[in-house]
Amino acid sequence: MSIFHNVETTPEKEIFPNWFGRMIHGEKMTIAYYRASAGSPFPRHSHPHEQVSNILEGELEITIGDETRICKAGDVAVIPSNTVHYGQALTDVRVIDVFSPVREEYR
Amino acid sequence: MSIFHNVETTPEKEIFPNWFGRMIHGEKMTIAYYRASAGSPFPRHSHPHEQVSNILEGELEITIGDETRICKAGDVAVIPSNTVHYGQALTDVRVIDVFSPVREEYR
Repeated sequence: MSIFHNVETTPEKEIFPNWFGRMIHGEKMTIAYYRASAGSPFPRHSHPHEQVSNILEGELEITIGDETRICKAGDVAVIPSNTVHYGQALTDVRVIDVFSPVREEYR
Repeated sequence: MSIFHNVETTPEKEIFPNWFGRMIHGEKMTIAYYRASAGSPFPRHSHPHEQVSNILEGELEITIGDETRICKAGDVAVIPSNTVHYGQALTDVRVIDVFSPVREEYR
């Protein structure tokens, strides 16, 4: 497995409409560098992987379970396994999502 | 366990001399927001946790096993379990390190 990576040279995938991610995988974690444009929603979904969303830029409205927040740079959302979440980019956003275990379907 | 966190309101700990981290823990992962000033080394060490270092700002010289690189914004280093690593901040740096499993000693 490669040790050193660069986000810009990692292929970008459109995971949800207008949500573009660059994925780097380890043995236990996937790191996803996301960008989305203002007004782009992401749908209700859940997965067995724990997810931690690190907001770098912009404003992201996110609902986790029954709790909704508008997250900005410096906000961090910890999404437990199998917990429904959804939301929308209120502005252009940049987010680093980390998952454990690895999102094998994104390799 | 809390879902929503903010980096600025998370207590800062000096993990190595001049390496300051703010830690957010989930069930499977620890997210560490680090800052260090130019010239600050971090010592040779290893741990059973996989680590992924996401460089946000500055230049970080890092050696993993027998490979050395100078990492900049957008560079990502995947450090396997139990692999010796060390390095130094060549400029002021900001890095997000993610670990799995949780760094229980940092709770």
